[in-house]
Amino acid sequence: MKRVYMDNAATTSLNKEVFDEMMPYLTEIYGNPSSLHTFGQEAHKAVSNARQQVAKAINAADYEREIIFTGCGTESDNMVIKGIAERYAKKGKHIITSAVEHHAVLYTCQYLEKTGYEVTYLPVDEFGQVTAEQVREAIRPDTILVTIMFGNNEVGTIMPIKEIGAVCREKGVFFHTDAVQAIGHVKVDVQDMNIDMLSISAHKFHGPKGVGALYVRKGIVIPSLLVGGAQERNKRAGTENVAGIVGLGKAIELACADIEKTSERMIAMRDRLIAGIESTIPEIKLNGHRTERLPGNVNFSIKYIEGESILLMLDLNGIAASSGSACTSGALDPSHVLLEMGLPHEIAHGSVRLTLGDDTTDADVDYVLEVLPRIVEKLRRMSPLWHG
Amino acid sequence: MKRVYMDNAATTSLNKEVFDEMMPYLTEIYGNPSSLHTFGQEAHKAVSNARQQVAKAINAADYEREIIFTGCGTESDNMVIKGIAERYAKKGKHIITSAVEHHAVLYTCQYLEKTGYEVTYLPVDEFGQVTAEQVREAIRPDTILVTIMFGNNEVGTIMPIKEIGAVCREKGVFFHTDAVQAIGHVKVDVQDMNIDMLSISAHKFHGPKGVGALYVRKGIVIPSLLVGGAQERNKRAGTENVAGIVGLGKAIELACADIEKTSERMIAMRDRLIAGIESTIPEIKLNGHRTERLPGNVNFSIKYIEGESILLMLDLNGIAASSGSACTSGALDPSHVLLEMGLPHEIAHGSVRLTLGDDTTDADVDYVLEVLPRIVEKLRRMSPLWHG
Repeated sequence: MKRVYMDNAATTSLNKEVFDEMMPYLTEIYGNPSSLHTFGQEAHKAVSNARQQVAKAINAADYEREIIFTGCGTESDNMVIKGIAERYAKKGKHIITSAVEHHAVLYTCQYLEKTGYEVTYLPVDEFGQVTAEQVREAIRPDTILVTIMFGNNEVGTIMPIKEIGAVCREKGVFFHTDAVQAIGHVKVDVQDMNIDMLSISAHKFHGPKGVGALYVRKGIVIPSLLVGGAQERNKRAGTENVAGIVGLGKAIELACADIEKTSERMIAMRDRLIAGIESTIPEIKLNGHRTERLPGNVNFSIKYIEGESILLMLDLNGIAASSGSACTSGALDPSHVLLEMGLPHEIAHGSVRLTLGDDTTDADVDYVLEVLPRIVEKLRRMSPLWHG
Repeated sequence: MKRVYMDNAATTSLNKEVFDEMMPYLTEIYGNPSSLHTFGQEAHKAVSNARQQVAKAINAADYEREIIFTGCGTESDNMVIKGIAERYAKKGKHIITSAVEHHAVLYTCQYLEKTGYEVTYLPVDEFGQVTAEQVREAIRPDTILVTIMFGNNEVGTIMPIKEIGAVCREKGVFFHTDAVQAIGHVKVDVQDMNIDMLSISAHKFHGPKGVGALYVRKGIVIPSLLVGGAQERNKRAGTENVAGIVGLGKAIELACADIEKTSERMIAMRDRLIAGIESTIPEIKLNGHRTERLPGNVNFSIKYIEGESILLMLDLNGIAASSGSACTSGALDPSHVLLEMGLPHEIAHGSVRLTLGDDTTDADVDYVLEVLPRIVEKLRRMSPLWHG
């Protein structure tokens, strides 16, 4: 059976070139980067090189001071939000975010609410966007952080990050963005976009799982979330995941090297998939913004049937898709993102996310366009809600 | 030049069999374990299998509920200590630890002190040990946690864990042990030893860097340190490092399969190295306990010279060693462990740690015994303190 992986927002395959780059650090070069001997210094050099690759990819000014490696994107989000809250509590205890953030941000904010912080969850429009104006209006004298995601993990909507960054800069409030879904897929420039802090996860752009990074603009002090050894200039304790860090560095370099061209190709496939689905399946709704959208994201609500049933049938046909965030799979609640965008419960329940990656081919798109309409028709025939 | 790696307490080489086991998860099996489709379920199965391997190695009763995968040993320590503090604050705010813990434990305790907790740092004897009696005497009605390391990362001393566990059980106080240096090297049985929580790091027993685990006895509730997705039964958010977890599982299985025999071989090499050094270099002191000691650990104070100079000279001769913990390398302060054991500053400064691993050979030991005395003699001739 043909197998088609269209769940690249959940995770991606490891790029072969990235894997080859990691190999020596999984075999002969095994020193601890903190060790002063040759074995250690070889590892240290590799970590330093990866730090430069990350800095270059996002246009950070100072790779040595501004890039911190972490264990995952979730750790980056937790570290930066809890850290700013702790460090700047004297200035104020108000944080602004959006209602459609990833749970790594939302739940961290909710955790802070329990400990005396106040959080404004900006509502989104029907496409899942907040505006810079909303941010401006929400900023108060006691606001210490604005954290708005770059691209939404479920519906792919891209936020007006540069505009939000400009407002935050003007108002003198720190701006963090969870760019886990955007990095390596759309151009990100922390200087041009006035981003103060940014979360990265390697496995979302064909790097390895188990490694993330955090950009923190020079001059902003964030206490460690993990305390212990003096790694990462005392900012993140724990022996460095050298092979993983090397993989992250290579993957971000490759993904950002020719990003306009890669994303153009991806957007063409995405739009063909969207157009194909819209022309063959009636009574569906594209979720998210049609153009301000991550290059690889397709998300539809398909009326009268459950998302889970579609996924199961797709899987039986060799196609891997998802109904929303992988991190909440198994939960029966409908997506908070779709509900916040105004979808009624029953329609939010019938959503399917198809996300493309570097290895997605035109033949994969053809296969999905051949299989999905058949599945939907079959399931609708079985549905008591269907009028067909 | 011959290269000899004797810094296995800092990190170990990745076992070839472990690497082979990880390979498929770095290449074709790349699904997200939280995904419900086939790609995801293949990954999920691998994580579940590793969980069983860990549980079996430490004799945990319930692998599904008691083993949590983390990003490193430091994360495990931070999670368990901060978590117990937060969750059981109503019962009390007193924690007991030892003065010679790894910084991942010590600094976490110091962090808690700043937020209103009280910590008793038990002093150690000249060998670096605390007794179960000391623990008993320190326990108060408001004590919520005892955290004592299994084996010391610098001097290798093994603590009387079973006895401390028995006291904690009798007194109804939770007992955590940072077993990062012990797991895979000495027999650890969480049930027999009354250990309630235990920290593990894969790269200390020839597994990969960037992955750790935490054992938490069923019934003990620890809030997440990283909040976000529903991974690890809601206990640790963040996409699972599948390949790393597979590697941890295989490495712990291999390391613990025949642990008595492996450690016997290691102890023989260690004791030959200790005897050889003692018989060829005058005015030195073995740090740590002579027999209640990690199988791979050798630590000497070499009077009249600086540890750093010895390391540099060893490195020039192809030998990787360290002066204490890798996590604090580069710091000029003498080891807190040696100072707590009563060594004067100037002697603590002249310490060298040689730690053996699975790939250490008798020829490696011979080479160190050939090189080290020559280096010490040379450095002492240059030292104004030396009377020779």
